[in-house]
Amino acid sequence: MKLQPVPLQSVKLHDRYLSFLTELCGNSVIPYSIQRCDETGRIAAFKLDWKPGMPNQPHIFWDSDFAKVLEGMALDLIIHPSEERRKELEQYVDLVVSAQQPDGYLNTHFTVVEPAERWKHLFSHHELYCAGHLMEAAVAHFKATGSRKFLDCMARYADYIATVFGTEDGKLKGYPGHEEIELALCKLADATGNKKYSDLAKYFIDQRGQSPNYFEQEFERLHEPVRPNYAMELQAHKPVREQKKAVGHAVRAGYLYTGMAEIADRYNDDELLEACKMLYESITEHRMYVTGGIGSSIVGEKFTEDYDLPNAFSYAESCASIALCLFAQRMLNITGESKYAELIELEIYSGATAGIARTGTEFFYVNLLEKDKRPMSFGHLSSERQPWFDCSCCPTNYCRFLPQLSQFAFSCTADGLQVNIPVDATIELPLEGRTLKATITGNYPYAKNFRITIDDDCNDAEIALRVPSWLSNPIAWFNGKTVPIDGSGWLRYRRDWRKGDFLDISYELKPRLLFADPRVSDDAGKVALALGPVIYALESVDNGDDLSALVLPVDQVFSLVPAQGLPAGTIAIKGRGYREEAAIAGKLYAPARPKRTPCTITAIPYALWNNRGSASMRVWIRALY
Amino acid sequence: MKLQPVPLQSVKLHDRYLSFLTELCGNSVIPYSIQRCDETGRIAAFKLDWKPGMPNQPHIFWDSDFAKVLEGMALDLIIHPSEERRKELEQYVDLVVSAQQPDGYLNTHFTVVEPAERWKHLFSHHELYCAGHLMEAAVAHFKATGSRKFLDCMARYADYIATVFGTEDGKLKGYPGHEEIELALCKLADATGNKKYSDLAKYFIDQRGQSPNYFEQEFERLHEPVRPNYAMELQAHKPVREQKKAVGHAVRAGYLYTGMAEIADRYNDDELLEACKMLYESITEHRMYVTGGIGSSIVGEKFTEDYDLPNAFSYAESCASIALCLFAQRMLNITGESKYAELIELEIYSGATAGIARTGTEFFYVNLLEKDKRPMSFGHLSSERQPWFDCSCCPTNYCRFLPQLSQFAFSCTADGLQVNIPVDATIELPLEGRTLKATITGNYPYAKNFRITIDDDCNDAEIALRVPSWLSNPIAWFNGKTVPIDGSGWLRYRRDWRKGDFLDISYELKPRLLFADPRVSDDAGKVALALGPVIYALESVDNGDDLSALVLPVDQVFSLVPAQGLPAGTIAIKGRGYREEAAIAGKLYAPARPKRTPCTITAIPYALWNNRGSASMRVWIRALY
Repeated sequence: MKLQPVPLQSVKLHDRYLSFLTELCGNSVIPYSIQRCDETGRIAAFKLDWKPGMPNQPHIFWDSDFAKVLEGMALDLIIHPSEERRKELEQYVDLVVSAQQPDGYLNTHFTVVEPAERWKHLFSHHELYCAGHLMEAAVAHFKATGSRKFLDCMARYADYIATVFGTEDGKLKGYPGHEEIELALCKLADATGNKKYSDLAKYFIDQRGQSPNYFEQEFERLHEPVRPNYAMELQAHKPVREQKKAVGHAVRAGYLYTGMAEIADRYNDDELLEACKMLYESITEHRMYVTGGIGSSIVGEKFTEDYDLPNAFSYAESCASIALCLFAQRMLNITGESKYAELIELEIYSGATAGIARTGTEFFYVNLLEKDKRPMSFGHLSSERQPWFDCSCCPTNYCRFLPQLSQFAFSCTADGLQVNIPVDATIELPLEGRTLKATITGNYPYAKNFRITIDDDCNDAEIALRVPSWLSNPIAWFNGKTVPIDGSGWLRYRRDWRKGDFLDISYELKPRLLFADPRVSDDAGKVALALGPVIYALESVDNGDDLSALVLPVDQVFSLVPAQGLPAGTIAIKGRGYREEAAIAGKLYAPARPKRTPCTITAIPYALWNNRGSASMRVWIRALY
Repeated sequence: MKLQPVPLQSVKLHDRYLSFLTELCGNSVIPYSIQRCDETGRIAAFKLDWKPGMPNQPHIFWDSDFAKVLEGMALDLIIHPSEERRKELEQYVDLVVSAQQPDGYLNTHFTVVEPAERWKHLFSHHELYCAGHLMEAAVAHFKATGSRKFLDCMARYADYIATVFGTEDGKLKGYPGHEEIELALCKLADATGNKKYSDLAKYFIDQRGQSPNYFEQEFERLHEPVRPNYAMELQAHKPVREQKKAVGHAVRAGYLYTGMAEIADRYNDDELLEACKMLYESITEHRMYVTGGIGSSIVGEKFTEDYDLPNAFSYAESCASIALCLFAQRMLNITGESKYAELIELEIYSGATAGIARTGTEFFYVNLLEKDKRPMSFGHLSSERQPWFDCSCCPTNYCRFLPQLSQFAFSCTADGLQVNIPVDATIELPLEGRTLKATITGNYPYAKNFRITIDDDCNDAEIALRVPSWLSNPIAWFNGKTVPIDGSGWLRYRRDWRKGDFLDISYELKPRLLFADPRVSDDAGKVALALGPVIYALESVDNGDDLSALVLPVDQVFSLVPAQGLPAGTIAIKGRGYREEAAIAGKLYAPARPKRTPCTITAIPYALWNNRGSASMRVWIRALY
C-alpha cells in the first residue's frame, strides 16, 4: 500500500460535519449502544452462562454487534483519552477474553447454544464474521491502550481458525458466508507483525467460489435444499478474480472487496487488483444511488441489475455504504487515484451518514431516496429513524465508523500527507524523522476556497491536496501566487516547507445539477441537486406535502440560504419551481395536463432529512429541461 | 335492484376481445385449471381420505379454488352446451356433494386435517370464504342443469351455518376473515327463493366491525398475539356503514363491498348504499391504478394511502380487479349510473383481463404497471406470465369471471335492455311477455361508430345505450336522424320497436392522453395513452429496451396502426418521441442534461403485454408538456 490512513491521534477535526459526528459518536452513539447491548443480553452473553429455557439466547450475530461497539470505544479513546472510559473498556475486554475456549475458539452462540454445530453452518451462521469483528476490536484496543491481552486472545483464535480452514488434507476448504474476517485478518497481521494472518485471509479470498462449491457441499451435509442463487448472493458463484459485476448481499460484497484490495496490495496481485477495479466500476457506474447507497433490493439486501435503482423502494443499507467507503479507502490508498476520494467524500456527506440522527440515538437501517404516501413503519424498513433494531448491525457499525472519519479524510506516507477531504482540521503528522504540522481552514465544503497552511518547518515532505472534480472554475495558489492545476485530481508538491507556507484552492460555490443515465427508470426526467459533494433532497417540512407535484426548471440561478431547523451553518438551496395540481379537481385521472403555479423550492442536505419530525422527502426532483 | 345482468343464454358475443376471452375460457382456461386442480390434489381432497403423513394435505383455501372452476364449468355449459362436459361436471358435483357431513358441513381441510378446529380460525382460515365459493358454484350448476342436488347440498350447508352464527345467545358472533360468502348467500337466496340466506348475509355484513371485535376475541382464545392493524386489514375496524375509505386486503374489500351493495339493495338500506358509494369513490378517485388495478401493496395485498400507486412495485392482484368489477356491476344495476359501466369497461379491457395470457394457460397474479431492469421471477410476484401458482385464486377466478363477460356488458329489466358496453353481439332477451331481439355492430371499441339494430318488432321496450364519457365529439342517430345526447351517459328510448329500427353513435376515434393527479408520485410528469376504454402501454418489443429513456411530446397527432405480433385487429398507437442517453457516456450521474434523439413510440393495449416473450413495459410514459 502506497498510502496509509493517518494515525487517529494526528488529526483534530474542526469542521462542522465530520467533527460533529465524531463527537456525537463518543458522547451519544457509543454510550447508547452499550446500553442497548446490555439491555438485550449482548454483553452478558460473553459470561457463557446461558442455558436452554433462559431468555436472551445468544444470537449468531450478537458477538459482532458488541465487537463493533468495543472497536468504537477503543477508537474513540484515542481521540478522547479518558481514564474512566478506558476502565470501562478494559472490563468489557476482560469479559470477552474470558469467553475464549481452551482451543482458542471464541463465539458465544456456538459455545452455549449449538456447541455441536461449530463450523457447520458457514453459509448462514456468521461465525467467521463475528470472529472478524472481534479481531478488529482487538486491534483497535491494542492501538488505544498498548495492552496485548485482547490482541493475543484474538491471535490465538486466528491460530485456531488456521488449523481448521485451508487447502491441506483434513482441513475444511470453506470460507465465510458473511465476509469480513479477510480484512480483519490483515489488520491482525499488521498489529502482530505476523504474516500468517494475512495468509489466512488470502486463503479465504482465493478459495471463495472455487469448484466444487463449498456451500453446496454444506447444504448436502445438512440435508438442506440448495437455495436458488445461493452462490451469487454471497459472491461465491465463481473465483473472485473472475468476478466482474458486483452481485449479492451488498454489505458482504463491500467487505469482501475491501479484503480483496488488502490482499492484492500485500501480495502484489495485479489480477486481484484488476478484479477490484472492475467491481468498483460495476458499482459506481451501474449499481449505486446518487447518494452512494448500494444494494437496491430488500430481497437478499442485494445488488440486482445495472440501473435498477428505485427511489421509493430503495434498500441502500447504512452498513453497505460504510462497507463501500472502506473499499474505496483501500483503493485510494493503493492507487492514489482521486476518484476514490471522491466516492469516500460522497459517502461521508451523504450515503454513509444519512443513517444516523443528529441525536445519535436514532438510526436508519434502510435509506430511502424518496418517501411519499406509503407508510413504511415496520422494523428496519421504517422511513422514520428508529431507536434500535433487533438486527443492530447499522447502529453498532456507526460506533466504529464515525471515529475513523479523519482517517478517510487524510492519508499519509512516511514522507507526506494526502488531503482527501480538505475539512477544517489541525494536523500533527509524524513522518520519518520529522513532523508535519499543518492547519486546514475554509469551512469546506460550504465556502468558496480552502487552504492548508504549514505550521512549522518541515523538510522534503510531500503534500497532496485534492482538487475535487466537481469544483467550478477552480484556481490554485501557492503562497498567494496562482499555480497550474493538472488533470490528476491533486495539487501535489514535494519541498522543504517553511512555517506559513500555504496552498489555496478557490472556486465558485454554486449548486450542481446531476442527471442520471436515463436508463435509471426512477430518475429519468429528474434532477438531483448537490452543493459540492453534498447531495441534497426536498423535504416536506420546507416545501409542503406532495413533493411529486413540484417541478424544477433547470435553467436558473439558485440561491444559498441558511437551512431552517437544522444545525447552524447548514446551507439550503433555494430555487424557483412550479407546483402542479390536477386539471379537474377530484379526478384521479384526467384527459388534460395539470395546472402549474409558481412556487419556491428548497432543498436540504439529504443526510439530514427526517431530523425535523416525520416528513416526505425526495432526492430526485422532476425537472423541466 | 332495478337492473339485472342479462341471462347468459340471451347473448352471443361476436366482438374480438370479449368473445375471444369467453371462448378461451371454455377451451383452455377451464380444462387447464381442472388438470392443475387434479394434479395438485385439489379434486381428490373431496374424497376425504387424506391422512396425516400423506402428500397433498388439503389446504385451507383449496375448496374455493375448485369451487371457482366448477362455477366456471357450469357457466360455460350455458354458453356452450355439451353433453360430454355436463357429464364431467356432474361427476365433480357428485364428488363435492359426497363430502358433506351429516350436519351439513362441507370443508375438506377442516374435515380431514383439523376437525377439532372448525370455526375457530375465522380470521385466517378461509372457512366461510370456501363455503361462499361452493355456494356460487352450486347456484351456477343449478342454472346450467336445472338439477337441485348441489344447490340443496349448499342450502343445507347454509342452514347449518345459520345455526352457528348470529347474534342470538349460544351462537358465534363472528364473520368471515375473507369475505365472499355475503354475496354468495344472496345468490343462494335468489336461486332457492329463500330469504333466510340473504338474512344470514345481512347478519355477516351488520356484525362486521362491531365492538368488541370478534377477531380480537379469537386471538385471545387462541392465545395468539393480536396482529397490528389486524382489523383494518380485513375491513373489520368499524361497522361497515361507518367505513368511508377502502382499506385492507383489496380482494376481500371488493367482495365485501359487493355483498354490502347486494344487501343495501335487497333491504332498501340507504345508509348502507351510501357507504358503498363512499367506498367506491375512495377507490376510484384515490386508490386505483389507471388500469383499474387496486391494492397497491404486496404487504397485506392491500390498499395503503390515497395516491400511493407505485408502478414498478404495484401489486394490483388480478382477483382484486375482478372483485372491483363485481362491485361496480352491483352499483350499476342498483343505480343505473353510467360511471359504474365505465369502470366495468376499464376492468374488462385492461385491469381484470391483463392477468390472462392469450394462450389461456399462463397468468399474472400481480399486475405490474412498469417492468424494467429488476428481475421479479419468484412465484406469484413474477413479471412473466406463470403457468400456475400454489395460491391459485387468480387462474381459477378467471374460470368463472370470463364466462360472465356478457353479463357485465348487458343489463336488463323486465321491460328492456341496457347496453353497458356496446360490443358486437346478437341478443335475444326475454322480457315480460315478449322478446327483444337486437344486433350490435361496429367493432367497438376500435371503430368510429357503433349501432344497435332491432331484429324483430317489440312493443313498449326500453333500450338504454351507453354514451361513454370518453367519446370524442359523439353524435347520436335514431333511424338515420340525429338525436340529442343528454348528460346522463345514456341514450335511452322507450317505444314500440319495429324490425330494422336502429340507434347509432358515431365519434372521432383518436387516442386519449390521461394525466394523473400529480400527487401520484410515480405518474407525475407522465402520460398514459388510451384508445377508447383501452389503456395502452409501451413494450420493449416495439420500442427497444430502456423505456424510461423515452419522452413523449403531448402536443401531436397520433396514428393508429395494426399491432405487430398480436391478434389480428389489435390496434397500436404510434407517435413521435425522443430517446435520451446520458450526456457523458458511461457516467451514471453527470452534471449535464441527457441528449435527445427523435424516435417513434409505439403503444399496445396494456392487457396484451408479455404475450410476445419477455419484455420491459410501462403504462406511464414520460411526457413533454
